[in-house]
Amino acid sequence: MLHGGNLFEIQRKCNIDKNSLLDYSANINPLGVPATLKTLITNRINDLEHYPDIYYHELKYAIATYYSLSIEDIFVGNGAAQIIFDSIHTLRPQKSILLAPTFSEYERALKSCNTAIVKHQLKEEENFDLDIDKFIKEIDDSIDLIVLCNPNNPTSRLITTKGLEKILQKSREVNAYLIIDEAFMDFVEDQQCYSMLDKYRDYTNLIIVRAFTKFYGVPGLRLGFGVCRNSGLIEQLHQRMLPWSLNTFAGYFGEVLRSETTYVEKTHQWLQQEKKRFVEELKKIEGLKVFSPSVNFILIKILVAGFDVPQLKQRMLEKNILIRDCSTFDNLDKKFFRIAVKSRIHNEIFTKTLMEVMKQ
Amino acid sequence: MLHGGNLFEIQRKCNIDKNSLLDYSANINPLGVPATLKTLITNRINDLEHYPDIYYHELKYAIATYYSLSIEDIFVGNGAAQIIFDSIHTLRPQKSILLAPTFSEYERALKSCNTAIVKHQLKEEENFDLDIDKFIKEIDDSIDLIVLCNPNNPTSRLITTKGLEKILQKSREVNAYLIIDEAFMDFVEDQQCYSMLDKYRDYTNLIIVRAFTKFYGVPGLRLGFGVCRNSGLIEQLHQRMLPWSLNTFAGYFGEVLRSETTYVEKTHQWLQQEKKRFVEELKKIEGLKVFSPSVNFILIKILVAGFDVPQLKQRMLEKNILIRDCSTFDNLDKKFFRIAVKSRIHNEIFTKTLMEVMKQ
Repeated sequence: MLHGGNLFEIQRKCNIDKNSLLDYSANINPLGVPATLKTLITNRINDLEHYPDIYYHELKYAIATYYSLSIEDIFVGNGAAQIIFDSIHTLRPQKSILLAPTFSEYERALKSCNTAIVKHQLKEEENFDLDIDKFIKEIDDSIDLIVLCNPNNPTSRLITTKGLEKILQKSREVNAYLIIDEAFMDFVEDQQCYSMLDKYRDYTNLIIVRAFTKFYGVPGLRLGFGVCRNSGLIEQLHQRMLPWSLNTFAGYFGEVLRSETTYVEKTHQWLQQEKKRFVEELKKIEGLKVFSPSVNFILIKILVAGFDVPQLKQRMLEKNILIRDCSTFDNLDKKFFRIAVKSRIHNEIFTKTLMEVMKQ
Repeated sequence: MLHGGNLFEIQRKCNIDKNSLLDYSANINPLGVPATLKTLITNRINDLEHYPDIYYHELKYAIATYYSLSIEDIFVGNGAAQIIFDSIHTLRPQKSILLAPTFSEYERALKSCNTAIVKHQLKEEENFDLDIDKFIKEIDDSIDLIVLCNPNNPTSRLITTKGLEKILQKSREVNAYLIIDEAFMDFVEDQQCYSMLDKYRDYTNLIIVRAFTKFYGVPGLRLGFGVCRNSGLIEQLHQRMLPWSLNTFAGYFGEVLRSETTYVEKTHQWLQQEKKRFVEELKKIEGLKVFSPSVNFILIKILVAGFDVPQLKQRMLEKNILIRDCSTFDNLDKKFFRIAVKSRIHNEIFTKTLMEVMKQ
């Protein structure tokens, strides 16, 4: 399994204390653990003595209220990863189409179902944006599942709802399901132009995947949810679902959704200012191509001949900074890496260090 | 999904504060959340900002040390339920044999794989003990998976390692796997007579399932592990496994294993004394048959004509006490219920209340 953010492994292998590392390889809100969550964990630590609500009713009610969804369309899971795995294992598709590059867990889940996989190659010269018309041409009768990531990981590029509705139209014609992973969508400012959450009720062949982990800075809590307006499929999902899939504290996350309005505002303020500033600073470094990000992570390409990401990664690690080597993504090579947008003070350290390291 | 311990549902449906309920429907150590766990959650709450170690190396190392296992034979999951589901979904058996009655999640997991299921009916007149020779006769070439629960839930009866080795021998002959769910085994005093943990290295067709939730009083934390001496199967399990299946705090549970020796001793002292005393008191109540328990839960049958568990359950609920109706278990009917062994003070309240209610 290849992912960013494995501080524990770095600590073990390189003998560096994980707390002294600046982790630019995982895309987590630098505002950190919301105060409401800290308080409720501390005050209700003894609730671990009880099984969590097997129906997670309060949590689903809070999610339904927060995002204006119907509670019966919601299913929750142990991170967005479980929503993806449960959806794919329930659908058991014959043939699926994925973007390349994209988040690697779709392919892992599909392979464990022996699904045939078609890759739609995104083009560097088009900034890895999805060309809807070209993509639709690849969706034929043999495809029964399309998986998209919006914004896409690691490219940080968005697809509009207009484009998605075209894809959904075609999916219907060929009897295919569409899974859209919106794990980073909460970071997008004008979400209504990109998220299908407002329109999901129009499509029974659509599953939307969402996560709280990244936006609320708590990947260690494990909490994601799915939305689907297909009662038959929801029933099938529940039938094969693990009991008590969320821990007690994740089950209480509804309180965080209700209370942390300032956290949400502060996050958008930080990202709006810092993303722009950080990108401008990064663009000043010679030998790099910075792809324009839509959210809190940035894809970058090394343009210098004879120098690649494994070398850069090693040099940055020597300065206690982690970056995400993107050569493990299909359709990307050893010239590509991904970094998070973090707090201004850390981003300044990052930019300064990267500049020095590129000059070595 | 029908399980004990759903305080949240009772609170919702009956409008009773969950903290005022005495929950005899879930079998959890009354010593509650270990102090070490409380301290580490409180002190390291900010670690939720990071992904847990995707390999859970430290936890596996602690488990291997504590139980004298080889680290490469261990896989961890989000509760014993995930170990059961992942094992069954990986094996994808054609035909499986289960005990009746037994824990219901094996059947749910098997049904989601469309596995044919044979039930071996345990006999009330034999105290629901497994007759090894009769059982072995039912294992033929068509069976590719046997699932046992030891001690069995809800009967609280054990199978000896001698019996299990006979079953394993037969399983080998017919090319079947054996899953043994030892979720309550830590409560057994002379474990070496019943647990296969000491002998698992002799069998490549054996998966042992263990849980920390019940013994360490933390079902809300979600943490279980599997043990298997079959590197090919372990590899397959890892291939289809969810990434980051445990939350941060569950990943730190190794510290609890290392530190809480007094907790373990106290638990065994409590159970040894209280189980015997509680059973004797329960046996004094007329109209009940109390099956002899091996661990911290007790199966009981109502012998009174015209009175059954749904009626008893309602009357006990009016006194804020929950019991587990066992009519949802195959091979049991509305005369059977299951209760936990809890602290002496609560068990006295329970006995007194049950006595009154039985006289109504």
